[in-house]
This record gives sequence, structure tokens and C-alpha cells, in this order.
Amino acid sequence: MPTIFTKIINGEIPAYKVAETDKFLAFLDIRPNVKGHTLCIPKEEVNKIFDLDEETYMGLMAFSRKVAKGVEKAIPCKRVGVAVVGLEVPHVHVHLIPLNSMGDMNFAQVQELTDAEFKQIAEDIKAQI
Amino acid sequence: MPTIFTKIINGEIPAYKVAETDKFLAFLDIRPNVKGHTLCIPKEEVNKIFDLDEETYMGLMAFSRKVAKGVEKAIPCKRVGVAVVGLEVPHVHVHLIPLNSMGDMNFAQVQELTDAEFKQIAEDIKAQI
Repeated sequence: MPTIFTKIINGEIPAYKVAETDKFLAFLDIRPNVKGHTLCIPKEEVNKIFDLDEETYMGLMAFSRKVAKGVEKAIPCKRVGVAVVGLEVPHVHVHLIPLNSMGDMNFAQVQELTDAEFKQIAEDIKAQI
Repeated sequence: MPTIFTKIINGEIPAYKVAETDKFLAFLDIRPNVKGHTLCIPKEEVNKIFDLDEETYMGLMAFSRKVAKGVEKAIPCKRVGVAVVGLEVPHVHVHLIPLNSMGDMNFAQVQELTDAEFKQIAEDIKAQI
């Protein structure tokens, strides 16, 4: 069964996309810790990040860096944090999280946002990438 | 003032080292979330990960991948998680955390270990890199 992220890649599930290449996609986390929380994924469906082949892994890291620099410009924060966990969705995803405090790394903290807010945030980040 | 990590690089403060190149160092986190929690750092003292020049950033990510594969072999876990936060020590560090549950990503959770245990864990990881 395709993962929820593969369904997003295929356009079967909508997402607030901020960047895309032939191999990678970045979109807003729908249950963000904070405003601007973004996920970067490889289009290839692999479960664990260190199981990616070296080229795909390095490509994902380079892509995540470009997206993170956009997030950092678009969203007021002290810095952009990174997390890769993946115990819930078995498809590699790099969390980019605008941080103002240690608590912003806590995935139990969910920021409720409206559709209009998500759209605006995605536009703001896209404009900075 | 040099960061605590620069002092470790310079040998002024001891650390349980697991891997080292001319540009990067990996050692056990002294306040680990779980056994095998490892930090990968560039020897260059830079505060924020996305401020590293692209070559150093990509080098750090490649180094972290090699170390993570060693951690995954040495420490029983479902996968190795990644976190970059850096609100406490202003010197880039990539956390590699052997995960069995989401709670293992919680930095408020500290695993107490003896010097002998740290030494054994460092040896076990080193042997797998």
C-alpha cells in the first residue's frame, strides 16, 4: 500500500507544497509543532533515512538545506531545527522546524492553523526558496 | 571563548570518541536520551547548521550517515533518529539517537550511565564504523 506521502506526491491527497524537484518534495506538516513546520521527502518510497542510497540521501540533505534557508527567511525564529524520526509514516521525511524554544521540538505540541493560514505560510516560504 | 565542543576537539575536555576525520568528530552525548546517543560535529566552530558552507554541511551529513550506520549495528533499536537543535551549545551538532519509541527523541529524558558503560558503548559503535 502506498504511504500517505506517496499519495501526496501522486496528487491523490492535497498538500501545501513549498518546493519540488524530480526527486524530492517539500510541503507543510499538517500537524505542525509551530507555524512553518515543513517536511522534505524523497519521491522514492523508502522507510528509514539511512537505508537511502548515498546519492539519494545526499540529494535529500542538499534539498532540505535549500528549503530550510527559505523557511528561516520566511518565518520569524531563532533557527531552523531538524528532526528525522519516522516511527509513524514509513516513508523518509526530514522535519524542518522553526525554533524559538526547546519546546518547539516537541511533537506532542500541535499548532492549529486554518486553510488560509497554511496557504499563506506555504506562499511565504515558497517566495524565499 | 571556545565552545565545549571545541575543547573536546582540542583534547582539553575528555569525550567518548567513536569516529574522527580531519574535519569532523563523533562522540557519545554525555547526557544521552538513550544508550548510544551520539553527536557528530564539524571541527569548524559554527553556530547554526544552515550557516555552514555547502561543502562542510554535505561533509557533515555524509560523516553522520557513516556513524549512524555504525550506531544502528551496535545498539539494539528500531532505527536511528536524527535531531539538530543547537539552542544550548553554539556549535553545530547532529544528534544520532537509537530509537525504540517516540519518547526516545525527548531530550528531557536522560539515561544515567557509568564511565565503564560509556566506554563499552563507544567501543561497540567504533567497531561497527
